[in-house]
Amino acid sequence: MEKRIGIIGAGVAGLHLGLYLRQHDIDVTIISDRTADQIARARLPNTAAHFAVTIAREKMLGVDHWPNPEFHYTCHNHSFGGPRRLDFRGDFTRPSRAIDHRVYLPKLMEDFQTRGGSIEVKAIDAPDLSVLAQRFDLLVVASGRGALAQAFERVIEDSPYRHPQRQLLAALFSGVRRTDPVGATLSVSPGHGELIDIPILTFGGMASALLFENIPGGELEMLTRLRYDENPKAFIGTVLEKMEQHHPHIYNRIDIPTFDLCAPTDILQGGVTPTVRLGTLDLGDGKFAIAAGDIHCTVDPLLAQGANGASHTAFVVGEEIVKDVAFNARFCERVAQRRMDRVLAASRWTNLFLQPPSPELMELVFEMSRNQVLCDEFTNNFNYPERQWDHLASAERIRAWIETRRNVTAAAAVA
Amino acid sequence: MEKRIGIIGAGVAGLHLGLYLRQHDIDVTIISDRTADQIARARLPNTAAHFAVTIAREKMLGVDHWPNPEFHYTCHNHSFGGPRRLDFRGDFTRPSRAIDHRVYLPKLMEDFQTRGGSIEVKAIDAPDLSVLAQRFDLLVVASGRGALAQAFERVIEDSPYRHPQRQLLAALFSGVRRTDPVGATLSVSPGHGELIDIPILTFGGMASALLFENIPGGELEMLTRLRYDENPKAFIGTVLEKMEQHHPHIYNRIDIPTFDLCAPTDILQGGVTPTVRLGTLDLGDGKFAIAAGDIHCTVDPLLAQGANGASHTAFVVGEEIVKDVAFNARFCERVAQRRMDRVLAASRWTNLFLQPPSPELMELVFEMSRNQVLCDEFTNNFNYPERQWDHLASAERIRAWIETRRNVTAAAAVA
Repeated sequence: MEKRIGIIGAGVAGLHLGLYLRQHDIDVTIISDRTADQIARARLPNTAAHFAVTIAREKMLGVDHWPNPEFHYTCHNHSFGGPRRLDFRGDFTRPSRAIDHRVYLPKLMEDFQTRGGSIEVKAIDAPDLSVLAQRFDLLVVASGRGALAQAFERVIEDSPYRHPQRQLLAALFSGVRRTDPVGATLSVSPGHGELIDIPILTFGGMASALLFENIPGGELEMLTRLRYDENPKAFIGTVLEKMEQHHPHIYNRIDIPTFDLCAPTDILQGGVTPTVRLGTLDLGDGKFAIAAGDIHCTVDPLLAQGANGASHTAFVVGEEIVKDVAFNARFCERVAQRRMDRVLAASRWTNLFLQPPSPELMELVFEMSRNQVLCDEFTNNFNYPERQWDHLASAERIRAWIETRRNVTAAAAVA
Repeated sequence: MEKRIGIIGAGVAGLHLGLYLRQHDIDVTIISDRTADQIARARLPNTAAHFAVTIAREKMLGVDHWPNPEFHYTCHNHSFGGPRRLDFRGDFTRPSRAIDHRVYLPKLMEDFQTRGGSIEVKAIDAPDLSVLAQRFDLLVVASGRGALAQAFERVIEDSPYRHPQRQLLAALFSGVRRTDPVGATLSVSPGHGELIDIPILTFGGMASALLFENIPGGELEMLTRLRYDENPKAFIGTVLEKMEQHHPHIYNRIDIPTFDLCAPTDILQGGVTPTVRLGTLDLGDGKFAIAAGDIHCTVDPLLAQGANGASHTAFVVGEEIVKDVAFNARFCERVAQRRMDRVLAASRWTNLFLQPPSPELMELVFEMSRNQVLCDEFTNNFNYPERQWDHLASAERIRAWIETRRNVTAAAAVA
């Protein structure tokens, strides 16, 4: 059959899917509410890190334009505050990479068009879907903007929150010295939130993406409302003061004279409500829409599972589109079966880490601080959230994980 | 961890799982309401055929005690009545085999005990489950007998019927000449039902299992109520008369003087209501029960998907038990994710074939009668119901299947 696929949204899910389909010579149109140029000139959209599984997909798509090892990082540094501070490192088997999506997405849009993909620029709202459905055999909705998300039913049992669990400040900074080896850093201030420092490639070269994950009611929540443009100097002063107090492990790497936003628009403040929606929408007349990426599953950015999940879903949907002959209920079911475990695991794992840790989780952190096998496994599982969830889904599972990895390490020490 | 697994039921699901777990040195107890000897001496329980995927599992379990090619069959013969009769054959890639379960199950029970498995004989009812749960880390309920099934919630959306869709007469017969090559035969009498003839190994050697699938209200429904023991001669006379009229393709192979039941207890009459139940039961205190086999998914025997599905589920559950560290909600979810597609596909495909065929299905049958590639694929898919369902789930899919296989055949003809 001739297959005509319409994708709404030019984010990671939409572009990876579009590029995948073009590799298989399928007629595909991406509808974006902004041009590549508008995306490049917009405010900082996120601080997404791409793990090795996603970079591998970028290689497969022929869009790995940033192979320089300088742009990669190889570990997660952890710094847990509390009565006794724990600082420890987990190493990736294969490196990760963060590229400002204002650099990344326009480049992939160019790739997509060069390879015969068509991009239309217009805003789409829920009522437009059934009209669009007449032009395409399948619609993939890969944009969570506006009211489009409401078209996909919220899954109550997988959406425990009605409000953001963190108040966010994300921004690109100069003046943050890298760790050695180069890594992302997660600093935890119990009761107040987390700070994540990610080496990121921006328009101006490598910088530091600082993502403040502030617990509502904690001492850092005010950072979400602090306005840089109103008083840059006061803003920077307050950020430094809060970091010194709550996130010293990262603060210690700051070169105070050069510490500043890379540009006034390199900042994003707000919060997201973690939400899982049904992945399928019946548009009538035998036509369906598939939700992909944030619109399907919105996660708090704490564990960087958004873009990686979006890319995974793009490949699942792409493979099924290439293989299948009809885009009906059975198609939607197959897509759901293949992606659901990873999607839900990413959501549940993130939601678990947004809550105060259980005694078992505290024990896991302590054990990771002295067990490299365990800590490296935890770190690599950022690529495979369903594997992480197998270990974290209950107190019993966490204890079993600690126990078995303790044995591995003991056996290795004896050998 | 030490794992103690309790299995209720000594059918295919229970025994394949028990044997799998013993291969992995796991402590496992099967609780059966009957001894091996009682099972061997009971009335005919079914006419189950084991397809190649199941025979492969029997090899893996080391219980392939019947490797003699004489016991196998290699094809499905089809005979569709109607204005123009269609007779055609589909070949398996690997052979199938039917063994009277009164021969088969006691032998596997012996294997299980020889390998360190423990069998307890007692009847279990739903209220016993929570008591049993205290002895085991996980319960697997692999027996649909009595009220035990009611403990697992019926899934309404996958259980469209409240009554049997066929009135069955299943019996083992002497005096039915085998086809050449040896195959099972499916004969269809539109509006009245199907007759399936399966070569089967019984206590007395090879015989023929005839499974009459009679449509309620049709001319053969009375066979379900005809009593052999009241008047064997009249019974045989009526069966012959009905076969001659409705299933001539099978009737033509009967040697009338020797045509009779192999033994007076080699007969089963009644009907089953196709039902899908939740595969998991929360027993409280962190303990769960998994449903396996008929109790999870009861299919009409038309397409022989019962025992094969039970064996598949046994391996899925067994692999997860070996791999996992806790038998809680996440375990149940993983089992569900891995088996659900095959379970539901078997159920939906069978249910589809219990209803009057759509025009597309009629077209498929006609096309199979002249396209060997298509017919062989349909035949082999008895091993993989989810692949069959990919082709049968909608009119569009059936048409696409016919179309693509027509092209394959045309291309082969040109080459």
